[in-house]
Amino acid sequence: MQIDIITVVPGLLDGPFSHSILKRAEEKGLAIVRVHNLRDYATGKQKQVDDYAFGGGAGMVMMVEPIAQCIESLKSERHYDEIIYMTPDGKTFDQQLANQLSLKGNLMILCGHYKGVDERIRQKYITQEISIGDFVLSGGELAAAVIADAVIRLIPGVLNDETSALTDSFQDGLLAPPIYTRPADYDGMKVPEILLSGHNENIANWRFEESVRRTKERRPDLLEGTDFDIGEKRN
Amino acid sequence: MQIDIITVVPGLLDGPFSHSILKRAEEKGLAIVRVHNLRDYATGKQKQVDDYAFGGGAGMVMMVEPIAQCIESLKSERHYDEIIYMTPDGKTFDQQLANQLSLKGNLMILCGHYKGVDERIRQKYITQEISIGDFVLSGGELAAAVIADAVIRLIPGVLNDETSALTDSFQDGLLAPPIYTRPADYDGMKVPEILLSGHNENIANWRFEESVRRTKERRPDLLEGTDFDIGEKRN
Repeated sequence: MQIDIITVVPGLLDGPFSHSILKRAEEKGLAIVRVHNLRDYATGKQKQVDDYAFGGGAGMVMMVEPIAQCIESLKSERHYDEIIYMTPDGKTFDQQLANQLSLKGNLMILCGHYKGVDERIRQKYITQEISIGDFVLSGGELAAAVIADAVIRLIPGVLNDETSALTDSFQDGLLAPPIYTRPADYDGMKVPEILLSGHNENIANWRFEESVRRTKERRPDLLEGTDFDIGEKRN
Repeated sequence: MQIDIITVVPGLLDGPFSHSILKRAEEKGLAIVRVHNLRDYATGKQKQVDDYAFGGGAGMVMMVEPIAQCIESLKSERHYDEIIYMTPDGKTFDQQLANQLSLKGNLMILCGHYKGVDERIRQKYITQEISIGDFVLSGGELAAAVIADAVIRLIPGVLNDETSALTDSFQDGLLAPPIYTRPADYDGMKVPEILLSGHNENIANWRFEESVRRTKERRPDLLEGTDFDIGEKRN
């Protein structure tokens, strides 16, 4: 999989792709992320990529032409399964969408910045609009990094231990149980004895019960319509 | 406001805080972000910060002691209004929470990595657990950067044009209307004529109607219980 990210602030993405899991995915040849500076596709001597909004109002709008140039140039090099625009009014990203995207070939991600992109780009090129949540960021860059991270770690072989991703929160519809490591006694705070028992079945049962308990307590919405839905309704 | 972020992979956060709005906020003295390498607080010659989970299973757990050392050290220097842990089972971050946090003094943010932190850290130190959404990342670092960005841009004076944040999606409970900039005609795709009319009141009305229309279409849940709720119910 190749993910191409288009941005006016490439420096914002310096860190995320040169460390940790994303770096390892590239070294293993499993996924590669390329960041493209939109200014390289600007025409005119000012290298302008944004302009005032028609109709007035605060904030700049990202212009059609440089984005169109960049997208066309990338499309001429390879096929993209999705051209994604990061925007607060897009479909809310979740683990199911991460799973779906991890099965795709190549992805292009356009980061909105300033007030966002000219609507015509969305109409002409964008195949999927995604939001990472109901909040506003100064640009789509961090959101694009979030998508890339969540998707790439699901590609088989990227994580060292494949069972690790499968036991994460949300993969089985439950939140993860509490976890502990040494020391068994920290300043009087003790690890639950069952975890020290060596009895695998009891430990597995305890973890499952804790997962269900924690999900009921914190995110009962995740249990609606499942076997764990005990019919309690909230507003 | 000072935001202290505690992480085992500080390199992941190289970009976000040295560019764009967060850099400007620091230059103006309005907000400062400091990233702390948890390894600097590890004891023992291996500088160990994680260990196997009690009870077995895939993935490493972040140890109590280095985190406790780091938190205690920071707390001895200044007061923190919140010590936040980024975790998928935390409260879902949204614009309202961003607004609340932007009014605080200093914040500390602990990034989970690997399978997460020893439960006892959560019990002893954490005052607020936050998730940026129902998906799993390889660590809390990008999530912490998202929080910092969303919060800091709300501090008065950080954005160049203060009205800019107020017209963003979610601030008034509606999604933003479509935006356009030059050229008025791109390859036959034209800007709506009303935006070229120069008639401010009509433009404001059109934008408001488009905001409502887009919100009804994409996020009817945002309208429930408001004047725009026209009683249509979905599952």
